[in-house]
Amino acid sequence: MKIVLAPDSFKGSLSSSEVTQVMERAIKDVDATHTVVSKPMADGGEGTIEAMLISRKGRKVNVRCTGPLGEPVESSYVLFNSNEAVIELAEIAGLTLVPTSKRNPDHTTTYGLGEVILDAIDRGAKSIMIGLGGSATNDGGLGMLMALGMKAWDKDGQSLNGYGSDLHRVHSIHFEDIDERLKDIEIKVACDVTNPLCGERGASVVFGPQKGATDQQVEKYDQSLHQYAELIENNLSQSYQNISGSGAAGGLGFALLAIGGQLDSGAKLIAETIHLEKEIQEADLVITGEGQSDEQTLYGKAPGYVASLANKHHVPVVLLSGSLSGDQKSLNDAFTSCFSIVNRPLSLEESMNEVKTLLYEQTKQIIKLVGAFSARYSK
Amino acid sequence: MKIVLAPDSFKGSLSSSEVTQVMERAIKDVDATHTVVSKPMADGGEGTIEAMLISRKGRKVNVRCTGPLGEPVESSYVLFNSNEAVIELAEIAGLTLVPTSKRNPDHTTTYGLGEVILDAIDRGAKSIMIGLGGSATNDGGLGMLMALGMKAWDKDGQSLNGYGSDLHRVHSIHFEDIDERLKDIEIKVACDVTNPLCGERGASVVFGPQKGATDQQVEKYDQSLHQYAELIENNLSQSYQNISGSGAAGGLGFALLAIGGQLDSGAKLIAETIHLEKEIQEADLVITGEGQSDEQTLYGKAPGYVASLANKHHVPVVLLSGSLSGDQKSLNDAFTSCFSIVNRPLSLEESMNEVKTLLYEQTKQIIKLVGAFSARYSK
Repeated sequence: MKIVLAPDSFKGSLSSSEVTQVMERAIKDVDATHTVVSKPMADGGEGTIEAMLISRKGRKVNVRCTGPLGEPVESSYVLFNSNEAVIELAEIAGLTLVPTSKRNPDHTTTYGLGEVILDAIDRGAKSIMIGLGGSATNDGGLGMLMALGMKAWDKDGQSLNGYGSDLHRVHSIHFEDIDERLKDIEIKVACDVTNPLCGERGASVVFGPQKGATDQQVEKYDQSLHQYAELIENNLSQSYQNISGSGAAGGLGFALLAIGGQLDSGAKLIAETIHLEKEIQEADLVITGEGQSDEQTLYGKAPGYVASLANKHHVPVVLLSGSLSGDQKSLNDAFTSCFSIVNRPLSLEESMNEVKTLLYEQTKQIIKLVGAFSARYSK
Repeated sequence: MKIVLAPDSFKGSLSSSEVTQVMERAIKDVDATHTVVSKPMADGGEGTIEAMLISRKGRKVNVRCTGPLGEPVESSYVLFNSNEAVIELAEIAGLTLVPTSKRNPDHTTTYGLGEVILDAIDRGAKSIMIGLGGSATNDGGLGMLMALGMKAWDKDGQSLNGYGSDLHRVHSIHFEDIDERLKDIEIKVACDVTNPLCGERGASVVFGPQKGATDQQVEKYDQSLHQYAELIENNLSQSYQNISGSGAAGGLGFALLAIGGQLDSGAKLIAETIHLEKEIQEADLVITGEGQSDEQTLYGKAPGYVASLANKHHVPVVLLSGSLSGDQKSLNDAFTSCFSIVNRPLSLEESMNEVKTLLYEQTKQIIKLVGAFSARYSK
């Protein structure tokens, strides 16, 4: 039997590649003749690159770039086949790179992302996938655009830098100076939020506070992002600020749209990059999973996307999660079967402490059952 | 697909027939074309008759007999095919029929069991299965034997009754007066304990206290049971008091051995009576279960016995329990797969409150998975 493993991480306890390791061991312990293909999933946020390198051979490129606070950081991205790059924003301008005491959108920038994009282009990348999620910034991608070549000035004609605070002063820009090579680059943006750039559901109001923005700052950023966006949109004669996802990563979504990027669900883009569908197509069974599942699982989350691929090719797909709750009916419609790893009444803490053992045992039960029936009927 | 359901009860929350009802509904909701055969199991204790009547057509015979305290009680037993009877001791001399304040082995008797056996013989029973378990008595079966015709006197030649207190005075007996028809009756005793009649592991020491015996009474009964047993054994020129199970139900095991009864595991005898093996032999899947499973499940408990039958006929067998604990390896060896009904971290109380929903959902997941594979490979 060919079994494809494509779980998300069990947040707080196991990374997706750890999940596939445990599952693979369980499967092999049941029947070493099964073919196991590990394709750990991710959502474009932290851990995306690590997960992808498990399932597809790629080269990790180390790069020194500008960090979220303007300081140099050692970061890395991945090159597949020399012309396909995957960049994880969290590695360059992630919230986890900024100590809590220093979280203030005025002082953070996406400048490093622009530098890394250029590095990838220098090395021959023709297609760049960028995973958003976990950003420390609210600069509307100003930093990134400036690293890519855009110029910006305040009303006195003074050159600006690419920090959040510069957004409030942008008066004119020179978008034409952006690196010409970008025109020929495919930019795919993994983005799981649908927020517009501004307004009640915009970047500043919804995500600003978790990045250290005060109420006053939120209001000011909401206005400044709008004015900044108008400048760029006038320049390009096209509107992006109300496109779903333009408010992602502190408005970085908007800037990526402006340079021709296409926003799509992280699960879908990652699945494409790791060639998941091809493996699923040939599989006898697909197992996915995550820490906690409910009807939200079907909306853009990795297990839901994995299920849609499996269903497309009529391959049974099992969801194996730490916890199942909410509307079971919609999960039942999407998955062949849904199981929790929990094997008895226990607390969340106990289940997290025992996660490896529980996951191992439950995987075994599923494989043994499937094995009994595939053996029974394949004669 | 033909699916046989043979669970034990989920103690404290669902009877075995309730378990099969929930499972059957889940299976039919997944695929109404599946053939479901419900064979709820039991261990010979309370609920045995109710469970058996689900899976085999029988006639419930109401009978007025002597209760555990000597008072008349309305009891019942089952006749299958007019010549096979099943009697549940708990219905005649059960501990639940005696208020806690009246629990005292001196005042309880198994007399009613003898009466019910005679009633069954009167109605043509040739084979009688008796489920022990949950008895209120410690009379060594004296009451039953006297109801069947045995006479007993004290050292002054005074006739005795069949209460526990009479045991201490038995000086001579007339075993020959026992109903002659018993010679031609097959008596099968469902008994899941291995205790001998007397001594440290004997009926009085181990089970006396829960029937209200004081320390003094325990000691006295242990001696009296021994003397009483010697009287009968001398009469029959055969020894029974050290046979495994002779200490069951306050020494009733001994008396049943003395009248030719064969002791066996409750699960095995019940499975035989409900013709479980025949159904399993033709099944594609067997599901069993119980409230709590661990390695003890494999020793005489219903799910363990069901597994042995399924394994004998190479039919996949799934254990579906409220809780799995202990040594998973031995369970994995006996069952194709073991699942808990628990679908997320929760407390024992929560899992018992939601038992029907959890059991329903988990059964569905198993059937959907098996169904996907049987459909996949049966082409």
